[in-house]
Amino acid sequence: MTKKKLAVGVDLGGTSIKIGLVDSDGKIAKKISFESHAEDGPEAVIKQIESGIKKILTGRREKIIGIGIGAPGTVIQKEGIVENPPNLPGWGKVNLGDILTKKFNCKVYVENDANAAAIGEMIYGAGQSFKNFILITLGTGVGGGIIINKKIYHGETGGAGELGHVTIDSLGRQCNCGSIGCIEAYIGNNYLIDRVKKQLQDYTNSSLFSLTNNDLDLLTPKLIHIAAEEGDDFSKLVIVDMGTKLGYALASVVNVLDIATVIIGGGVAGFGKLLLDSIEASLKERVMKPIKERINVKPAKLKNDAGIKGASALVFYKS
Amino acid sequence: MTKKKLAVGVDLGGTSIKIGLVDSDGKIAKKISFESHAEDGPEAVIKQIESGIKKILTGRREKIIGIGIGAPGTVIQKEGIVENPPNLPGWGKVNLGDILTKKFNCKVYVENDANAAAIGEMIYGAGQSFKNFILITLGTGVGGGIIINKKIYHGETGGAGELGHVTIDSLGRQCNCGSIGCIEAYIGNNYLIDRVKKQLQDYTNSSLFSLTNNDLDLLTPKLIHIAAEEGDDFSKLVIVDMGTKLGYALASVVNVLDIATVIIGGGVAGFGKLLLDSIEASLKERVMKPIKERINVKPAKLKNDAGIKGASALVFYKS
Repeated sequence: MTKKKLAVGVDLGGTSIKIGLVDSDGKIAKKISFESHAEDGPEAVIKQIESGIKKILTGRREKIIGIGIGAPGTVIQKEGIVENPPNLPGWGKVNLGDILTKKFNCKVYVENDANAAAIGEMIYGAGQSFKNFILITLGTGVGGGIIINKKIYHGETGGAGELGHVTIDSLGRQCNCGSIGCIEAYIGNNYLIDRVKKQLQDYTNSSLFSLTNNDLDLLTPKLIHIAAEEGDDFSKLVIVDMGTKLGYALASVVNVLDIATVIIGGGVAGFGKLLLDSIEASLKERVMKPIKERINVKPAKLKNDAGIKGASALVFYKS
Repeated sequence: MTKKKLAVGVDLGGTSIKIGLVDSDGKIAKKISFESHAEDGPEAVIKQIESGIKKILTGRREKIIGIGIGAPGTVIQKEGIVENPPNLPGWGKVNLGDILTKKFNCKVYVENDANAAAIGEMIYGAGQSFKNFILITLGTGVGGGIIINKKIYHGETGGAGELGHVTIDSLGRQCNCGSIGCIEAYIGNNYLIDRVKKQLQDYTNSSLFSLTNNDLDLLTPKLIHIAAEEGDDFSKLVIVDMGTKLGYALASVVNVLDIATVIIGGGVAGFGKLLLDSIEASLKERVMKPIKERINVKPAKLKNDAGIKGASALVFYKS
């Protein structure tokens, strides 16, 4: 039996809830995952979280040192209030920190999920040896977290780090956020798949057709990755283009923040070396000269269960 | 005679050096200004600074509490070292803080000039009542300073706040910094004047022709401002376009930092209400919804002698 300190990490989403018992090295001792009953409103979801945590704790003798929650959207820090989380209808403001503290009689830390991911990389992952870094998470949305002097940077209301909404072309593509030309509107999963589908009309020899059995509705970022690994030139182009554009956006961010270490996380980080190399080349080409030599692009270390691990890291970060 | 504390502010530039004696309200008691002998190298310029400070202090009984220097380029904070300042050839690394401390036997604070301007706005100016704000300075270059929790944000090497090198079109205009589409490449004075000159071929009824006696080489941002004030439609368009583009760049910055107060400084801030309104409209249109209502665009308060005042503010900020 380990004698390491243990924390519970809760990865709260509109689709699923994942809960794990994690040690101070980021190793998961036990985990569960279930569909979230988001449509039944906050009380139902909170009950799900409570019974999930109970299950995780059943039969363990060690006392946990706290519970960490990674939640979508804005989190009001001091109180641990989750505010209008996207994909969790009817929440308004819910004081999740307070509710769970009373229930489990331990410290509870609530944080925006992208910030929790950044803290996870700092405590357990690729950011451990850096005082400052930028984490960008690639997925349906493009998000991020900024670590300054070993602390998460929240901004005025906890909304900082919206790296997906840095523009690369102010007269370009419409973004879901209401603005134009945000990097998310080029490389967010749905936008990316839409664009690739259209481009494929001109690349009829791409192996993406056979990989999807000619049903492009089955196309995913993962399949693009597989095709590129198998040598499909079109898929390689897609990945290089994605990395190049991401480098443009990151150059703006790096110039403003003077932080030269960038960690690439999220599911699409599985695009691997080709994506990372493209990001780094583009970023180095675009940042201001004094920063260029310090640029360091790294893949995130927390891959599977990054949500649980990031949430649990909140406990070790704060305590 | 005032009994207020006094500081010396030195505005060091490649063209001129301005030195003033400033009280804790930002009032200048005495000032001088002279051409810098930049071409003679650092020793000559340092002698100029020393004799300028002596002149400023001559005949004063009050003891100053310190000297502040606003210098171009990178400043290494702890030591007060000026590193390869643009337009000051041959400097390499000069420990200006140390040299002047020994000479005048008082505390000396050295800071990058854009950061000094931000500190000036915080101590004396438009930023006094804000915990967080972004200062953007418009001129030949576009620069900036970021105030977080009443402190200047330096980044890893003192290079943070390069707001002029946030891209608005990653495939757009070439910028002097080596990148493409930086906001500076659209609204920096020289770029702006170049572009306006070309556009004027299609606006032959603009009053800018008469204001320059048909010699467009005499065109300046100030003349564009005067023409707009006098009702010249083309000049108004130029200013609105400038503000709109600046809003695009600032939206990226505000989304990353979650800081909603933006102060517009630099000579071109004289463009006045039309420019400010355009910036605010464009920024509000582009930032993420939760920030929109908090957006607050204000003109800088330090106008004349902003350089001297910003430099002197370093002393009151630190002591």
